[in-house]
Amino acid sequence: MMLDPLFKPRAIAIVGASTKELSIGNVIIKNLQTYGYTGPIYPINPSAPDVRGIKAYKTLAEVPGEIDLAHIIIPAPMVPQAIIECGQKGIKAVIINSAGFSEMGEEGDRLQQEFLANARQYGVRLFGPNCQGIINSDPTLKAYCNFTFTYPEPGHISVVALSGGVGALIMQALDDLGVGQRLYASNGNACDVSIPEIIRYYGEDQETRAIILYTEGFSSPREFLETAREVAAKKPILAMKAGRTLQGAKAASSHTGSLAGVDIATELIFEKIGILPFSDEGEMVRAAMAFSSQPIPAGNRVGIITNTGGPAVIATDVLVSCGLDVPKLSEKSIARLKETQFPEAALENPIDVVATAGGPQFRAAMEVLLEEELVDSIFINFVTAPFTDTDAVAHEIVAINQLAKKPIVCNFMTNLALERFQKTMGILKAGKVPIYANPTDAAKALGALARYGLVKKRDIGRPEVFSGVDSAKARAIVEQAQNAGRSVLSATDVYTIFEAYGIPVASWSVVNNAEEAVAAAERIVFPVVVKVDCEEIDHKSDMGGVAINLKDAAAVRATVEDMQNRLGKFGALKFFVQKFLPGGRELIIGAAAERELGHLVMFGLGGIYVEALKDVVFKIAPVTRVEAGEMLASIKTAALLDGVRGEQGIDKGEVINLIQRVSLLLTDLPMIQEMDMNPIMAFRNGVFAVDGRIRI
Amino acid sequence: MMLDPLFKPRAIAIVGASTKELSIGNVIIKNLQTYGYTGPIYPINPSAPDVRGIKAYKTLAEVPGEIDLAHIIIPAPMVPQAIIECGQKGIKAVIINSAGFSEMGEEGDRLQQEFLANARQYGVRLFGPNCQGIINSDPTLKAYCNFTFTYPEPGHISVVALSGGVGALIMQALDDLGVGQRLYASNGNACDVSIPEIIRYYGEDQETRAIILYTEGFSSPREFLETAREVAAKKPILAMKAGRTLQGAKAASSHTGSLAGVDIATELIFEKIGILPFSDEGEMVRAAMAFSSQPIPAGNRVGIITNTGGPAVIATDVLVSCGLDVPKLSEKSIARLKETQFPEAALENPIDVVATAGGPQFRAAMEVLLEEELVDSIFINFVTAPFTDTDAVAHEIVAINQLAKKPIVCNFMTNLALERFQKTMGILKAGKVPIYANPTDAAKALGALARYGLVKKRDIGRPEVFSGVDSAKARAIVEQAQNAGRSVLSATDVYTIFEAYGIPVASWSVVNNAEEAVAAAERIVFPVVVKVDCEEIDHKSDMGGVAINLKDAAAVRATVEDMQNRLGKFGALKFFVQKFLPGGRELIIGAAAERELGHLVMFGLGGIYVEALKDVVFKIAPVTRVEAGEMLASIKTAALLDGVRGEQGIDKGEVINLIQRVSLLLTDLPMIQEMDMNPIMAFRNGVFAVDGRIRI
Repeated sequence: MMLDPLFKPRAIAIVGASTKELSIGNVIIKNLQTYGYTGPIYPINPSAPDVRGIKAYKTLAEVPGEIDLAHIIIPAPMVPQAIIECGQKGIKAVIINSAGFSEMGEEGDRLQQEFLANARQYGVRLFGPNCQGIINSDPTLKAYCNFTFTYPEPGHISVVALSGGVGALIMQALDDLGVGQRLYASNGNACDVSIPEIIRYYGEDQETRAIILYTEGFSSPREFLETAREVAAKKPILAMKAGRTLQGAKAASSHTGSLAGVDIATELIFEKIGILPFSDEGEMVRAAMAFSSQPIPAGNRVGIITNTGGPAVIATDVLVSCGLDVPKLSEKSIARLKETQFPEAALENPIDVVATAGGPQFRAAMEVLLEEELVDSIFINFVTAPFTDTDAVAHEIVAINQLAKKPIVCNFMTNLALERFQKTMGILKAGKVPIYANPTDAAKALGALARYGLVKKRDIGRPEVFSGVDSAKARAIVEQAQNAGRSVLSATDVYTIFEAYGIPVASWSVVNNAEEAVAAAERIVFPVVVKVDCEEIDHKSDMGGVAINLKDAAAVRATVEDMQNRLGKFGALKFFVQKFLPGGRELIIGAAAERELGHLVMFGLGGIYVEALKDVVFKIAPVTRVEAGEMLASIKTAALLDGVRGEQGIDKGEVINLIQRVSLLLTDLPMIQEMDMNPIMAFRNGVFAVDGRIRI
Repeated sequence: MMLDPLFKPRAIAIVGASTKELSIGNVIIKNLQTYGYTGPIYPINPSAPDVRGIKAYKTLAEVPGEIDLAHIIIPAPMVPQAIIECGQKGIKAVIINSAGFSEMGEEGDRLQQEFLANARQYGVRLFGPNCQGIINSDPTLKAYCNFTFTYPEPGHISVVALSGGVGALIMQALDDLGVGQRLYASNGNACDVSIPEIIRYYGEDQETRAIILYTEGFSSPREFLETAREVAAKKPILAMKAGRTLQGAKAASSHTGSLAGVDIATELIFEKIGILPFSDEGEMVRAAMAFSSQPIPAGNRVGIITNTGGPAVIATDVLVSCGLDVPKLSEKSIARLKETQFPEAALENPIDVVATAGGPQFRAAMEVLLEEELVDSIFINFVTAPFTDTDAVAHEIVAINQLAKKPIVCNFMTNLALERFQKTMGILKAGKVPIYANPTDAAKALGALARYGLVKKRDIGRPEVFSGVDSAKARAIVEQAQNAGRSVLSATDVYTIFEAYGIPVASWSVVNNAEEAVAAAERIVFPVVVKVDCEEIDHKSDMGGVAINLKDAAAVRATVEDMQNRLGKFGALKFFVQKFLPGGRELIIGAAAERELGHLVMFGLGGIYVEALKDVVFKIAPVTRVEAGEMLASIKTAALLDGVRGEQGIDKGEVINLIQRVSLLLTDLPMIQEMDMNPIMAFRNGVFAVDGRIRI
């Protein structure tokens, strides 16, 4: 594999190895030693005969053996030459820990370009600069090419983080929870090896069963989307995107120098390709613990076993808030519980086995839930009541867990300062039971498993193919405008493009004067709307260039003449005459080109809903039928689409088609920068775009 | 103090002391011994000569000394007699750990009533039954009257929990964080000593500086409101109410047998009296750590110091989401930072001192933020970079923390498996710096401090006094209806009551026939609304008993005659004629009596907003001017009150008055069960109730 020299180095050189204890050039060697790296380490140091007891070399050229990977920890201006030397030595991968490059402005950026060119010349892959490095926990390799301080046990979770600080935090948190890890990477400025490439590598790594990703955005969102889509189809990707707030995004741009602005695109990519999003790093790590040992639940119904009341109430609240259901148990289950539980037990869901319950009571309750067809997963509250045999309970939980029939999470409430309960915890840990210190944390972890179950089931399908679309005609119009240097299309252009894509528009005509306007209005049938059509007039409505509900020829004539008088000074006027369609529900569909990614499509209710309530949703084009349906369902005011107070609902099927046709139009015409249909008038039968705007 | 025998027992008897290791009657004695109880312990056991090495007595009567407190751990049917014996011995407080009472149904409830009567006879205060007990960490007492397993260090946080399981969880979590505790209580069925009483006791306890409360609702919400209001004015109360979801509420009612149904009242009480609410027990406990050592910030502006980029981005996101601001620093601060920080440092907010920063860099950055007038609190991300002197950094943070000028929280990212970093943590812990394992947790804790700062500043004021209110008239109407056995008031009654309270209503008249209706309509001025007024017809609108926008005498006459023809068969008809007021914004104000608490008042936008969006807010009456203003501001559609799309805003001052007048009406007339004003028509000048309903 391309990245094997990076992630599976057979020999490692440290360019800038140092004898100073508190220096990165020393710490990395110490980490390789501490973790037990199985290959040779070659410290490169111009003067020291050895570093940390390992023979040092003055230059790479002097090293006798072959080297797969080099760390570079030297002042920035010396890095370009060092890369040449790496190339000459035949090194295939270089981790540049040094900082002082693109994150520091122009001069740094120039240096970065320079060493990148050198690397390309020799076919060297670069990781960083301004980065931590990688870790591979494979027991046959134990490559700790990083200056952090956590020494993870081997396992099946791999981590990739834009920020080394957050990466280290995640690695440490997983380790604190006793979750084994496989590969780790934090690539700083990412001048060459990219996050998508790392994700692809993790996807191909047999031992990686789930991936954790931390990012603040992507330099190449399309590459990420395409790569991660393939990987997400094979294994769970748990991801967190920071910089969600304007101030957070500002903080993000200041520390990497690479990104700016609140982007919603990253979260939309996650949604589109089935990456499980988190906004709390602790919650993400705790969820990873459940993913590392538990099957994905078949559905959202959970059975709760508890030996204490209150924590079951909290768990129920949180599970329900996470979209899970805590159903009534079947009569059969209740009858079986009655036979096996203490008389004080509550034989409902939650099943309260009471504080005095021992192994047999827990075991019997778990068996009932395993058999219960109405339940897909098991939540256990286990407080170590001092008057019970807590080890016996733990053994029973482990036994059931090892059947791996339904996912289990356990809120384990105890005092670990007491040896007795440490032992109980050890039993649960050894038995791979995901245990949490409070009910909310445990419930959210199970919630994540269930959420991922839904993600895996969701099939957004392929973009629909519509017959009768005249894309050549639309393209010609746009290209003509481009050639003429126009960025805003005329009303005629906009409506002709809409019609070429089968987008229903209210009958319309563009005319030059009052006579023609009256003729057009009579053909269209009154009442009509008249709008001025003039490239120089942008905010038509504010300028008095729009008149609605004109009911007869006289009104149309008077309106056009009035506009001619008032607005003629701005330029050559044409007039757009269109059928007036009152009484429908106003909708809005919009689109904007997103850096490298294509277009984001927006949907919402028009009028006050978009203006005052900002109640809109976005998807990345192409939008499939399933996604368009999700857009309608996920606005807060979705109930209004079905009609309220005796009003009729709107034709949702036609709206869904309309969104897809818009999406197709955008995919065919990537030069479109912005598009608006505001409003679209939606009725019980049919929807019509009554105002449109396209900017290229 | 009343509860001193319970919380400060000078001698304790254990009725039901047991020699069996895994029994509650043994564990409680063991706990008293382990924790180091300073008073005498008297095990009561009919046969054993001693229990856990302490001389046992066959009966309470045999005990030579005086006893303040007895635990009772014997089968339920024996408890009433045991209480008599406690009374005869002069014991003042009894903790009944035994279960099998009101939580188990009727027979248990009868037993509970019986022993409660016995206790009252002897002036014995009862704690429980079906409960854990209390803990007092006072070093001179060390009373561990409980069967749990956490042995808290003395401190200043006191805990009271309806659920023993959650109480134990909170106590353990505080202990895990190293937060000292003062008093603990979990009173199970709470047949006598109540949560409000315990809160009052905590309020009077000098050593208690903050209180943590867990509840699932209150048996006496009014008592809680009044008591906790006084305590909350003196010290922070952090509270969590579980059973927020329907399924959670069901789980709650099954484990205590005392409460049912989702109540929003508890959260409204918290809001009204300034209790800080939480919905995540872990978050509440972590916040308590900050409360236990930090001052309350003067405002919501935070300065961030970080030695790693990504965690500062996460912290910024979370702080902003908690309502905090991360402002630009002053020129003066930036200049000072420039002098003291490394060249790679980012001198903004967050201040990135970079990973190589040592004590001097951290110190200088903290001093800048202490002096910075634009900042009220300090957030620190401190990752223990292995190449820095982390102890020096910790010492500097402690030094600044001990100045106690501005609150500090610290996200401390490290590997505690390494001795070196354990030492660093020890320095921070000893210096009372609240440290957290990830940025989200730390940011939420600071968020809680800031939120409490706002709670303390909020003064809802007193309910307003309105002149010209004729409460006697309103009361007479309601009493007349009560005497007549009517539960739904007539339109005349409703509007007369409204007018007695100065609530503006659209001009109206009640008439008997078409002639009178026309005369009334002419007096009121057209257009008018006509509604049938008949006790037997409840859903007037569905029955065709409402006609709007009647523009002339003929229309009024025709309408009344038509209603007479169609609806006459249901009973004697009257007709309600009212001014028709089109074009305003529809509002809704409602009220419902809440068990023991008075009334909950609801406000929202009418029509589709209440029907489809359920966008309403509640407060507990009496509602002050400040609270009424908060109601208008806190609906999701608040922007619509100010007018959108060129519409005029409504008269918010009049709506605020209206809410207060409704509140006064409800306070004066507690027999009202439900009231609705739907809709209220609101205009730029003036608001008018145009439909009202009162049920008593």
